[in-house]
Amino acid sequence: MTQTLSIAALFDTIVAIFAKAGLSPDQAAAVARTVTAGERDACKSHGIYRIEGCLRTVKAGKVNPLAEPTVTVDGAIVRVDAQGGFAPLAFERGAPVLAETARRHGLAAMAIGDCVHFSALWPEIEQLTAQGLAALAMCPSYSSVAPAGGIQALLGTNPLAFGWPRPGNPYVFDFATSVVARGEVELHRRAGKPIPEGWAIDAEGAATTDPTAALAGALLPFGGHKGSAISTMIELLAAAMIGENDSVTARKVLGDMTLSPTHGELVLAFDPRRFTADPFTAAEALLEAIAGQGARLPSQRRFAARAAAETEGITLTPDETARLERFLSLGLDAV
Amino acid sequence: MTQTLSIAALFDTIVAIFAKAGLSPDQAAAVARTVTAGERDACKSHGIYRIEGCLRTVKAGKVNPLAEPTVTVDGAIVRVDAQGGFAPLAFERGAPVLAETARRHGLAAMAIGDCVHFSALWPEIEQLTAQGLAALAMCPSYSSVAPAGGIQALLGTNPLAFGWPRPGNPYVFDFATSVVARGEVELHRRAGKPIPEGWAIDAEGAATTDPTAALAGALLPFGGHKGSAISTMIELLAAAMIGENDSVTARKVLGDMTLSPTHGELVLAFDPRRFTADPFTAAEALLEAIAGQGARLPSQRRFAARAAAETEGITLTPDETARLERFLSLGLDAV
Repeated sequence: MTQTLSIAALFDTIVAIFAKAGLSPDQAAAVARTVTAGERDACKSHGIYRIEGCLRTVKAGKVNPLAEPTVTVDGAIVRVDAQGGFAPLAFERGAPVLAETARRHGLAAMAIGDCVHFSALWPEIEQLTAQGLAALAMCPSYSSVAPAGGIQALLGTNPLAFGWPRPGNPYVFDFATSVVARGEVELHRRAGKPIPEGWAIDAEGAATTDPTAALAGALLPFGGHKGSAISTMIELLAAAMIGENDSVTARKVLGDMTLSPTHGELVLAFDPRRFTADPFTAAEALLEAIAGQGARLPSQRRFAARAAAETEGITLTPDETARLERFLSLGLDAV
Repeated sequence: MTQTLSIAALFDTIVAIFAKAGLSPDQAAAVARTVTAGERDACKSHGIYRIEGCLRTVKAGKVNPLAEPTVTVDGAIVRVDAQGGFAPLAFERGAPVLAETARRHGLAAMAIGDCVHFSALWPEIEQLTAQGLAALAMCPSYSSVAPAGGIQALLGTNPLAFGWPRPGNPYVFDFATSVVARGEVELHRRAGKPIPEGWAIDAEGAATTDPTAALAGALLPFGGHKGSAISTMIELLAAAMIGENDSVTARKVLGDMTLSPTHGELVLAFDPRRFTADPFTAAEALLEAIAGQGARLPSQRRFAARAAAETEGITLTPDETARLERFLSLGLDAV
C-alpha cells in the first residue's frame, strides 16, 4: 500500500535512520534535509534512493559519522574542513560565513575539503539564493567520463550548478557535465535496450550503443569538446586548486564506485547588489522573456513537485516504505 | 604576391591604421595587440578580418576612439569604466589591478562596463595566466541564439573562456555557447550548402538546415538545455549583475549586427596558491593524462601557429596586404 506523509514526517524518519546508523544529531539532520529535499522535489535519484549508499559508506568506515566541520576565513576564501564527514553539514556550517564574506567583499569562494559527497548541488545553491546571492558550485566525482577525443575514463560526471535569486523560486540549474548520468546507462542495460549514439565509448575507446560495453568503458562529456573543457575546468578549480582529490584519485583511493566518494567542492557566491544598484529588474525581464517563448526554465519540474508536496505531502511506494522501515529497525545491518 | 612579415611589423602596421582612424595612441596599441594576437595564432576570425568592423564602428560614431578607461576597487570587485571605448585598453588597464586584488583576497572579479567589444576572450585570459592566476571570463553579445525549447533569438553567442597557468603555454579554452558562430552559417550560405541539423531554427521557430532561413531565424545553444542554461547564466552575471546591456539590449540600441556591440564583461581571477600550497602538481598530472590519451587540449592549434609565427613570421595573402594598405592610406574613408 502506498503511504502519504508530510515533508516534516519524512524528514523525522530519515533523521532517525541516520541517528540509528551512528551519525551525530547535526550530521543526521543535515543529511536528512538533503535527502528529504530530493524526495520532496521528485528528484528521485537524490531522494530516499540515496540512503542505502550513505549507510553502506558509513558501514565501510569511509565516512566520519561524528565529524564536526571547521570553518576558517582567509580574505575572500572560506575554507571548510568537513573532517571526513558527509558534505551537507560542512556546507551548512560554511554557508552563512560564505554569505557574510561575499557581502563584505562583493564575492567569495568556499572551498570544502575532506568531505564525502553524495548529494545534488541544487539544495546548496538554493540556500545561497535564498539570501539574495548568486552562486556557482562545482565538484569532481569518480572518473567515469573520457575527455572529448580520448579513449578512457578520466574525468568525473562533474556537476555544475548555478543560481540567481528571484522573487519566488530562484533561477537554478544543476547538471552533470557528462551526456547522461551513469544510472541512465544502467537503466538501459537492465531494460535490454541499446543506448543512443554519442553517450559512451567501450573499453577500447570505440563508440558503442551497447550499455554493458559502455559501463565497462566510459561516458562522453555533454556538448563535445566544449563540455569536455568545462569538465576539465571543474577538475582544475574544484580539485587541484583547493588541494582535494580529483576524480581519478577519488576513484583510486576508494576502489569502489558504489560508495560515496571523498573529494572537495568549490562554491562561489556573488552579492549582486554590490556590483550594481539594481541587478534584478533586467534579470527578471530576461527570464520572463525566456519563459514567454515557451522555453522551460531549469528546475521548474522540481518546483512544481515541491509545491505539490507542501500541500499534499509525499507519497511513498510500498517498497520505499518497507525500505525505510528496514533501515530504521536494522540500522547498518540493513545494508 | 604573398607577404611575410614579423609579428612586430604587423603590430606596427595595425597601430598605424588605428592611429590614422583617430584612435588615441593607447587605444590604437591595445586594439592592435589584440588583432595581432589573433593573426599570429592563425585565429583568422579575430585577426586582420576584424579591422574593418572596428573602423566601421569608429566611423559610425559608436565608439569613443580617445576613451581613457578608469579603474576603481571596491572590496574584491574591480570596476573598469571603458568610457565607451574598445574593450582591449579597458582590459589592459584593469588587469594589473585585478591581479593584485585577486592576490590580496584569493579571488576577485573585474566588471568592465560601457565597452565596445569585438575581440576573443583568450588574449585576455592569457594576460592573467601569465601572472600565475586562474581566470574565468564571459560576456553577452548580440541576441542571435534561441534558448533551448524556444522559438526566437534572445541570448547572444555569449563566449565563455577559462585559463589555468602551466609551465609553457597555459590551459585555455574560449568558445561560443552557441553550437557554431554565425559566420559558419554565413559560409554555408555563400557555398550554397545546407547546414547540419541542430544548428539553427527559422523565423517561425522550426528546425531548419537552410542557411538563409537560419540567418533570418536563430542559432541554437551548444549542448541542448545545458548550454542554454550556461548562456543564460552569462547574461545574468555579465550583463544584469554588472548593470550592463544584455544581448537583447545590445542589439536593440545599435540596431545593426555588423558594428561592434556595446556591453560589459565579467572576469574572475583566482590565485591558486592562496587556496592550497601546491595546486599545480595535480593539475599537471591531469592535463598530461588528457593529452596522453590523444585527446587534444584546447588552444593547441593556436599555440602551434604562434610558435611558427614567432620564428617564421606571419604570411599575408595579397588580398590581406591590399586591405591593410587601403586602411593605412584612406583611414575611415576605406570603410
